[in-house]
Amino acid sequence: MSERKYKYSVILTNYNKPSDRFLTAGYGDPSEQRGVFELIELAGKQGVVEGLEMPFQPGEDAGTWIGVGPSNKKEVKAAMDEYGLQLCSIFPILWGDWRQAKGTFGSADPAIRRQTIDLCKRAMDVAAEVDCPYIGIWPGQDGFDYYFEVDHRKVWDWWVDGIRELADHNPAIRIGLEPKPNEPRAYSFISTVPKTLLLIDDIDRKNVGVCLDIGHSLYGLENLAEVISIAQGHDNRLFHMHMNDNYRASDLDMVFGSVHTIEHIEMFYWLRRTGFDKFMSIDLFAYRTDPAESIAEGVRWMEAMDRFVEEVGLDTLGKLIESGDPLQTTRFFREKLLGG
Amino acid sequence: MSERKYKYSVILTNYNKPSDRFLTAGYGDPSEQRGVFELIELAGKQGVVEGLEMPFQPGEDAGTWIGVGPSNKKEVKAAMDEYGLQLCSIFPILWGDWRQAKGTFGSADPAIRRQTIDLCKRAMDVAAEVDCPYIGIWPGQDGFDYYFEVDHRKVWDWWVDGIRELADHNPAIRIGLEPKPNEPRAYSFISTVPKTLLLIDDIDRKNVGVCLDIGHSLYGLENLAEVISIAQGHDNRLFHMHMNDNYRASDLDMVFGSVHTIEHIEMFYWLRRTGFDKFMSIDLFAYRTDPAESIAEGVRWMEAMDRFVEEVGLDTLGKLIESGDPLQTTRFFREKLLGG
Amino acid sequence: MSERKYKYSVILTNYNKPSDRFLTAGYGDPSEQRGVFELIELAGKQGVVEGLEMPFQPGEDAGTWIGVGPSNKKEVKAAMDEYGLQLCSIFPILWGDWRQAKGTFGSADPAIRRQTIDLCKRAMDVAAEVDCPYIGIWPGQDGFDYYFEVDHRKVWDWWVDGIRELADHNPAIRIGLEPKPNEPRAYSFISTVPKTLLLIDDIDRKNVGVCLDIGHSLYGLENLAEVISIAQGHDNRLFHMHMNDNYRASDLDMVFGSVHTIEHIEMFYWLRRTGFDKFMSIDLFAYRTDPAESIAEGVRWMEAMDRFVEEVGLDTLGKLIESGDPLQTTRFFREKLLGG
Amino acid sequence: MSERKYKYSVILTNYNKPSDRFLTAGYGDPSEQRGVFELIELAGKQGVVEGLEMPFQPGEDAGTWIGVGPSNKKEVKAAMDEYGLQLCSIFPILWGDWRQAKGTFGSADPAIRRQTIDLCKRAMDVAAEVDCPYIGIWPGQDGFDYYFEVDHRKVWDWWVDGIRELADHNPAIRIGLEPKPNEPRAYSFISTVPKTLLLIDDIDRKNVGVCLDIGHSLYGLENLAEVISIAQGHDNRLFHMHMNDNYRASDLDMVFGSVHTIEHIEMFYWLRRTGFDKFMSIDLFAYRTDPAESIAEGVRWMEAMDRFVEEVGLDTLGKLIESGDPLQTTRFFREKLLGG
Repeated sequence: MSERKYKYSVILTNYNKPSDRFLTAGYGDPSEQRGVFELIELAGKQGVVEGLEMPFQPGEDAGTWIGVGPSNKKEVKAAMDEYGLQLCSIFPILWGDWRQAKGTFGSADPAIRRQTIDLCKRAMDVAAEVDCPYIGIWPGQDGFDYYFEVDHRKVWDWWVDGIRELADHNPAIRIGLEPKPNEPRAYSFISTVPKTLLLIDDIDRKNVGVCLDIGHSLYGLENLAEVISIAQGHDNRLFHMHMNDNYRASDLDMVFGSVHTIEHIEMFYWLRRTGFDKFMSIDLFAYRTDPAESIAEGVRWMEAMDRFVEEVGLDTLGKLIESGDPLQTTRFFREKLLGG
Repeated sequence: MSERKYKYSVILTNYNKPSDRFLTAGYGDPSEQRGVFELIELAGKQGVVEGLEMPFQPGEDAGTWIGVGPSNKKEVKAAMDEYGLQLCSIFPILWGDWRQAKGTFGSADPAIRRQTIDLCKRAMDVAAEVDCPYIGIWPGQDGFDYYFEVDHRKVWDWWVDGIRELADHNPAIRIGLEPKPNEPRAYSFISTVPKTLLLIDDIDRKNVGVCLDIGHSLYGLENLAEVISIAQGHDNRLFHMHMNDNYRASDLDMVFGSVHTIEHIEMFYWLRRTGFDKFMSIDLFAYRTDPAESIAEGVRWMEAMDRFVEEVGLDTLGKLIESGDPLQTTRFFREKLLGG
Repeated sequence: MSERKYKYSVILTNYNKPSDRFLTAGYGDPSEQRGVFELIELAGKQGVVEGLEMPFQPGEDAGTWIGVGPSNKKEVKAAMDEYGLQLCSIFPILWGDWRQAKGTFGSADPAIRRQTIDLCKRAMDVAAEVDCPYIGIWPGQDGFDYYFEVDHRKVWDWWVDGIRELADHNPAIRIGLEPKPNEPRAYSFISTVPKTLLLIDDIDRKNVGVCLDIGHSLYGLENLAEVISIAQGHDNRLFHMHMNDNYRASDLDMVFGSVHTIEHIEMFYWLRRTGFDKFMSIDLFAYRTDPAESIAEGVRWMEAMDRFVEEVGLDTLGKLIESGDPLQTTRFFREKLLGG
Repeated sequence: MSERKYKYSVILTNYNKPSDRFLTAGYGDPSEQRGVFELIELAGKQGVVEGLEMPFQPGEDAGTWIGVGPSNKKEVKAAMDEYGLQLCSIFPILWGDWRQAKGTFGSADPAIRRQTIDLCKRAMDVAAEVDCPYIGIWPGQDGFDYYFEVDHRKVWDWWVDGIRELADHNPAIRIGLEPKPNEPRAYSFISTVPKTLLLIDDIDRKNVGVCLDIGHSLYGLENLAEVISIAQGHDNRLFHMHMNDNYRASDLDMVFGSVHTIEHIEMFYWLRRTGFDKFMSIDLFAYRTDPAESIAEGVRWMEAMDRFVEEVGLDTLGKLIESGDPLQTTRFFREKLLGG
C-alpha cells in the first residue's frame, strides 16, 4: 500500500452487520457481532486500510460499546498502534438516543443543545489525547418531517452558535459537517454541500469544514466533481470523505464502485487536481454481503480508480475538459474501459 | 362511527414506537413498549378504528411477540371481541429474520421458499380460525441490490408457484400482495400495482389481489386515482389499503393527511366510484409523534375526506372529470377549501 | 385588489401558448399567438395582476418579438400606464439562441461571456429608463450534461466576475439569480437557493439576490418555507418569486395551487413573517389549459392562501411551530380546510 | 459490421439538431437542418447502422417533412436500398399537433381517437408496402397533468379497443407500445413495462408488444435487466429498443454509454440470454454535440458492450448470478474494466 496517493480508512463498525427499521435484530447472526478490540484486530490483520474512524463512546462501560472514549482510549490506541493504524476520525453519535430524535445542535430544547455541545467537546478532548485530528458531525436527527414543525430562523442561529463554540473549544481539531438530503428526517438541516458551506461562512472558524459522503450527493441531485471543486475552492474546506454507492434514489450505502464507473473516476480526477490529501473512509451498510470483504472491495475500487487517473494523467484528463467535447470524453473512456 | 362508508383499521404495532437503522433501540423509552393485549386494550378504548391488522406469531412464546398465532389466537380474539374489534388482516413477517434477508418466495434457496410457503399457510390457518378473511404479503426482502444479483426469470416463476400454492391452500382466504418500489432492497420484486397485477394474472387464482400502500405509490411515480382504477377494473382486485403520507421521495410513513390534500380527496372519489368496500388500515411509523394520536389523526382525515366526497357527490366530481377542464377543478377545490 | 398584501404579476409571454421539444409548433393554433401590445392589453383588461415581467428585446425589430427593449420601451411603458400596470422585471433571454447552448456567464468562450454581460447591461439600462427596479437572470444553458464537460473551478470564477461587473454597472437596479436543479442542462450551475447565496457571497454586491421559482425548489428536494427563511435571513436577499406548481419530480410549470395546499400556505406564512414585500410573478406553461384563465386561477389561489394566513394570524401559526407538535398542526389544518 | 449479433439502427431525425421548450428555434444553425433524402445519404455514407427508423409522413408534401409516407415511399426505399439500409420502424407522430395535446388513442374526443387509429393504419399500410415489419407507438400526449383530469377507466378501454383494431388491421405488422413515466404529460398512460404488458394482455393480440426505451426505464425506477426479462418472458414481447442514457432523474436522451457502464453490460447479457434478435435504435437528442458523431459513438458503445458479453460468455456471467454473491460480481468487473 506504500504507493497510494490517499489514505484509506473505514468506519470500524462497518465490520459488523447492520440492522434497519424492518430487520431490527440485525442482518446476521447476533452471536457474530464483535466488540471494539476484536474489530480493530480484524481490520489490522486484514490490512486494507491505514486508518479507522470510530464512534465516540462517552460512558464508562466500554465493554459493550463499539467506539473510543475516556474509559478505553489508551487501550484502543495501543491496539491500533500494534497494526500501524491511525485514528483518523471520532464521531459523536447524534442520532442514537430517542432523546435526540428531534434534533441536537438545532433542538428547540436548550438542555439538549447544551448536552450536544458538551458531548462533542468531550469527543474533541479524547481526539486530542489520541492524536486524532478530526471529529465528524453527522446530525441525522436535525431537520424536520412535517409542515410548520420547526422555526427555520432559530435553528440556523442555534447551529451557528453551537458549532462556533465547538470550534473554539480546540482550534487544532478539525470539525467536519456531513450533509445528507434526508433520512432519517424528511428534510435534513445539513442537507447539501453548498448549504453546509453557507453555514460554515456564518460560523466563521477555520477548523470547520465539510465531510462529503458521496452517496448522499449522488441521490441529492449533486455532481461529485462539482461539489469537490466548490468545497476545495472554498478555502480547502473538504475535510473528510465517506465512500459508498447507490442508484441516485436513496442512501443504500452499497459497496463503493459497484454501481458507478466513470462518475467515480471523474471524482478522483478532481480530488487530485484540488490537492485533497485527507482520509477517505469506507462507510457502508453490508446488509447482505460479507462486511470485511465489502470493505476490501471498496478500497480496491478506490485504488484502481485513482491509479487509472494517475496513469492517464491530470494533463490528459484536463485536456478532455478543455476540449469541451463530450464525444471525445466518452470515446476515451470506451476505449480505456472496453478496448479499441 | 356508525355512518362511515368504510371500515378503518390500524396495524396494531403502530401503537408502539418504531426504530430505524440509525436509532436501533427505538424512538421512545423502551419501558413504554407494550405487548399485544395492552395494545388491543389501547385500541379498543381509543375507539377510532373498527378493525386491527396483526403480524402472524408462529411460535409458542406469545408473551414477547406482538401478533396473533396458534398459541394466543383464542385470547386475542376474546380481547378484540370485548371491544367489538374485527381482525381484518394477519400478515406473516417476511422481512424480520436475517435468514430472510435475500428473499422469501423468490429466494434462490428452495428451503427458504418452502419455509416461507409453510409459514404463510399456518398464518392462513389461524386466519380461518379467527374469522379473519385476509392475509397480507409484503415481501420486503424480495428483490435485489446489485447488478447480476438475481435470476429474474427464475424469481418470477418461483413467485407464481409459491403464491399459487398458497392460494389453493384455502381459497376462502384472500391474499393481498403489497407493492413497494424499493426499501429495504434497492429494487423490490413486488414493486408497482401494474406489475403486481401482471404477476397475479400468471398466478391465476381468484383469491389473490393487491394491497395498496398509498405511500409506496406516492413515491413510486404512481397516481393513486389511476392505480385504484386499474386494480378495481381488474376484477376488483384491490383487497386492502395501507394509509400514510410522504413527500413523493421515500417511504416516510407519516400521518395520513399531513402532506397531501386534493390528491387524497381524489383517491376517495375513486374508492367510492369503484365500489371499494374493504378495510383501510393506518400504517405509519410514529417516530417523533405520539403513536395513538397519530393513528387517530389519520383516521379523522380519512373520515373528513370521505365525507367531503359524499357531500359533494360523485356526480359533481364526475362532471369535473367529464369537463376535461383542470381549471374548473382547481377553482372548485379553491372555493371549497379556502372559501369564495 | 386594493387590500392585497403582495403585488402579483405575470410573465407577459405566459398569455401565449408554449411549445416543447415534442410539439415544437406550439400547444395552440399559431394564428392565435399575440404580440407584445395585444398581450399588455389583454393583461390590463383582465385586471388580475398589478405588474408585468417581460423578456428583454435587444434588437430593432420590435414587431415580432414579445418583450421590451430600446426600440419599443416608450410604447410599452405607455401601454402599461394606460392600465396602471408596473413593469416589475425585465429578463434578458440567456437560453434562446443556439450560440448560448453551452452557457452564457459561465461559457468557456470569452466572447460569449462578453456578449452576455453586455446584453444584460443593456437590459439594465432599459430597466432604469422605464422605472423597472429589477432584472432577472435565469441562465438555463449554464451547467453541464456530460462527465468532464466543464471546468467547475473556472466556471465559478467567471460567474463571480460577470455578475459583479453587472452589479456595478448600476447599483440601483436589483439583479435576481434564479436557481433550478436541471433542465435544459443535466445539472444547472445556479441550482439551489443555498448554492446561489454562496455565490452571491463571493460576488459581494448588495444589489444581487435570489429569484425563487417555487416549482424549481419543489422538485429540487428543497422546502419552500426553509429556503425563504434562509434567503431572507441572508440580508433579505429574496428579490423576486416565480409561482407555479408540480408533483416534485420535474418542472411542470402547472397552475399555482393546483397540486399543493398546506405547503403553499406555509410558504405564505414565511413570506409574511420575513417581511417579503416584492412581486410574485405567475410563471407557467399553459400547455393544455387556457393561458389567461390559468394565470387568473393562480393569482386567486395566492390571494386565498395569503388571506388564510392573514385571517388565522402569524401568532396562531407561530404557536403551532413553537408547540413542536405536528399533530396539533395537522389537526388545525384538517379542521380549517375540511371542517370539524 | 458483419460480425455483429444485433442490428443497430437510428431514428433518422436524430441526425438533425433538436429544439426544446426554451430554445424553440433549435440547437443549431437552422440552415443546416436537412431533409429526408439528405439524411438517408448521410446515414448511408456514415455506415454505422444497418437500419433506419422514421416518422410516418401522412400528407402529400414530402418536401419539408422528414419521414416516409404515401407520397415518397418509393423514393425513400430506393434511397435506402442504395446504401443497404433497412427500414426497421415507422412511427406515426402522436404528439406533434396541438390537436393531439390531450391524447390520441385515449382522447376523450371520439373524433380524435378515430383520426389516430386511421393515421396509424395508414402508417401500417405504408410499412407493409416498403417491407418494414414494425410500427412504433409512443403516445407522448396520452396521460394527464391535473387531478380529476381524466376518466382512468374509460381511457383504459379506449386504448384496448384502439390498439386491438390496429392489430387486426394487419397481423403481419408488429406494433410496439413504448412506455415512458412522464413528459410531456405529468403522468403518461403508457408508463412502465409491466403496465404496458398488462394492457397488452387485455388487447390480446400476438402482434402487439413493447418498445423499450432504456432511458425511460432508467429514470422510471426500473432495472433494465429485469424489464427485459419480464417482457421476453411474456411470450417474447420485446419488439424494439431505443438506446440513450441519462442520470436516472429525467429523460435527457444523452449519448448511449456516456453515463452507465456495468448496468448496460448487464442489459446486453439479458438481451443475449433471452434471445432478443430485433433492432436496437439510437434515440437521442444531440442538443450540444455533433448529431452524426453522437449516433456513431452510441453504436460503438453497443458494439463494445455486446462484444464484452460475448467474449466473457453467458456461462461466466450466469455463474456470477448463480453465486448470488455481489462481491464476486463487482470484483469481476473491477478487474475486467480497470485491470488487476
